[in-house]
Amino acid sequence: MTPQEKAGARDDGPEAPDSVGWTRAHSIRLVSAEAPIELELGGSAGPIDVEYETYGTLSPRKENVVFIAHALSGDAHVAGWDKDTPTNGRVWRQRKPGWWDAIVGPGKAIDTKRYFVICPNVLGSCYGTTGPGAVDPKTGKPYGLTFPMVTVGDWVQLHARLLDALGITQVHTVVGGSLGGQQALEMALAYPERVERAVVLAANARLSAQGLAFNAVARYCILNDPNFAGGDYYNQDQGPDAGLAAARMLAHITYLSDEGMHEKFGRRLQDKSEQKAGFGIEFAVESYLDYQARAFVERFDANAYLYITRAMDYYDAAARWGGGNLVEACRRARARTLVVSFDSDWLYPPGDCKDLALALARTGVRVTYADVPSRFGHDSFLVETQKVGRLLRSFLAH
Amino acid sequence: MTPQEKAGARDDGPEAPDSVGWTRAHSIRLVSAEAPIELELGGSAGPIDVEYETYGTLSPRKENVVFIAHALSGDAHVAGWDKDTPTNGRVWRQRKPGWWDAIVGPGKAIDTKRYFVICPNVLGSCYGTTGPGAVDPKTGKPYGLTFPMVTVGDWVQLHARLLDALGITQVHTVVGGSLGGQQALEMALAYPERVERAVVLAANARLSAQGLAFNAVARYCILNDPNFAGGDYYNQDQGPDAGLAAARMLAHITYLSDEGMHEKFGRRLQDKSEQKAGFGIEFAVESYLDYQARAFVERFDANAYLYITRAMDYYDAAARWGGGNLVEACRRARARTLVVSFDSDWLYPPGDCKDLALALARTGVRVTYADVPSRFGHDSFLVETQKVGRLLRSFLAH
Repeated sequence: MTPQEKAGARDDGPEAPDSVGWTRAHSIRLVSAEAPIELELGGSAGPIDVEYETYGTLSPRKENVVFIAHALSGDAHVAGWDKDTPTNGRVWRQRKPGWWDAIVGPGKAIDTKRYFVICPNVLGSCYGTTGPGAVDPKTGKPYGLTFPMVTVGDWVQLHARLLDALGITQVHTVVGGSLGGQQALEMALAYPERVERAVVLAANARLSAQGLAFNAVARYCILNDPNFAGGDYYNQDQGPDAGLAAARMLAHITYLSDEGMHEKFGRRLQDKSEQKAGFGIEFAVESYLDYQARAFVERFDANAYLYITRAMDYYDAAARWGGGNLVEACRRARARTLVVSFDSDWLYPPGDCKDLALALARTGVRVTYADVPSRFGHDSFLVETQKVGRLLRSFLAH
Repeated sequence: MTPQEKAGARDDGPEAPDSVGWTRAHSIRLVSAEAPIELELGGSAGPIDVEYETYGTLSPRKENVVFIAHALSGDAHVAGWDKDTPTNGRVWRQRKPGWWDAIVGPGKAIDTKRYFVICPNVLGSCYGTTGPGAVDPKTGKPYGLTFPMVTVGDWVQLHARLLDALGITQVHTVVGGSLGGQQALEMALAYPERVERAVVLAANARLSAQGLAFNAVARYCILNDPNFAGGDYYNQDQGPDAGLAAARMLAHITYLSDEGMHEKFGRRLQDKSEQKAGFGIEFAVESYLDYQARAFVERFDANAYLYITRAMDYYDAAARWGGGNLVEACRRARARTLVVSFDSDWLYPPGDCKDLALALARTGVRVTYADVPSRFGHDSFLVETQKVGRLLRSFLAH
């Protein structure tokens, strides 16, 4: 499916009454070059500029904040339509609706008439927040692989700094799907006093061995692309496009379900008149992957993909906060929590999401768990906007 | 796991009483240059040399033949130990037990004291049977991508020719797992009068959309490796090793189950003393994939991988024989059939295997279906030698 289909966007565009309209990203220097922050895995980072979008109006008592954390390939552009914006030498924003436009807007499930919505782009990304494609002021060249390793914990630390900078003490709700869901969980554990409600969609407390394996193959493809050039490819005519394309194709398989792929593509040929006899694109599913990969290479930076997938690998809430015991880790949480899994999601399978909900429940935290029937696999948190919207609307209203 | 673990091999080696001992491959010219065979997708092939192994003794009435078909990366060396044998400029056999040594041998489930076992290597492979790495007598150079496309149907046609050449009218049993299982099914459908029994393990009537997608990514990695050189890499210092390695890593994930990977690797670090902070091998599962990929690049030819995965893509028993209707296709079969799925296999999921068994049953063919509990995923047909052995022993004795 196209990003538009994913976002559940309609034809009515930014002028529609339930759209937040044309959006503009903000940028804030949260960390200076002079006072860099220490990162969890060693090394430090600074200066750090964070790009973020906001929708709605912050109430006088600042108690209406919904903080959204984006997933692996997402960005701060959650809702409304942005204009073409070059973000660095290689990656451009597209003129398109945000990735959760069907959920966020006036009168929508996350109602911008009521809530002040914030979504920052994560450290290490290629969408405006400082990352490996940014210029290192010490060398005057892009960081590349000299950029320090980042973690979900580092991101959440920066999220807290952003809230500080905006004078926000506490969020009404933090919400995210997939890697964004892990940020929501981490915020509830790292800053329990700042989080009233947390929504963890299609995510759990740590990636499985199978998930680690898929990320490893994806990075292998990027790292072994000759155009990767040790990460120092920003001034080349071509970056590691083939490697990044392979990584994205692979990831896309994990975002869909077997059942969903069967329904959508089956074994249909892309061009029925074409004789099957070669290694080109013949099946519809091959055409889909090729389309997704091409689009992704245009919009994402390979180094950012390395850094963000590694952060995804490393996150382990039980190890961070409970010495390996998830219930112990969850004892830190104070937030009322909604955990949502999708029954055809095999990247963050329902069983693990349920384990997270049970661990939270055992600590006395008020937790709601829903396993949503869907054939869209992991992508469900983006695609099942009606079902997800109903759950969010009800949870936020409590 | 290592190939040795997979094959269930013990320490006792080729001298053990239940081993077929040291083996030697046979080679036979089944198709001459002067009389090439027409292939299903157009094009013709000839000369074709087929490499095969046999164990046991053909009975005077030639009614004790067990025909084994190998899977994607398999070869004719099913049982016993072979010696180092260069098969072409790039690929060597290793001194190792055959891939199903635990199943085939004197007194084993496929008892070579009773049965005459044949396993040929498929057309397009890199293990002795003519394939893209073989020298085209017309040019004096390796075929590379000028080799014609091959199908499961072409393989089975050659299997029948091999039987003809050995004077064998009918096989007692044809058996295979995965892509080998599809050859077993195809032999039962294409040559119903020649097959008394068929055993289809971890396979069904056609690959799913998800399976097509994984193969597409694997081929993408090979085709886009700069050392692929349009398939004409045999005289280079290096072939598309990185692409083939990525393909193999990816395939390995699909051969294991999530549960099995969790038990075997979990999120364990490969070297516990090592600080996590980079893109190298850190988790045990990464080390496993790396090991598997390196070993595979040493033993397999990238072009062969392209041809054989495409044959896997194209196979569709219902489309070939029943106008899209699997029951109609199965009406051709006369063989008593055993279909075995493994409950954690997600490459050829149990549901599809059961559908095949039900389709056969509806035509009146005597069919047995078993879904074997196992945590080893698709690999179960190689790894669960005791469970598979019991099923085979009982089925063959009927």
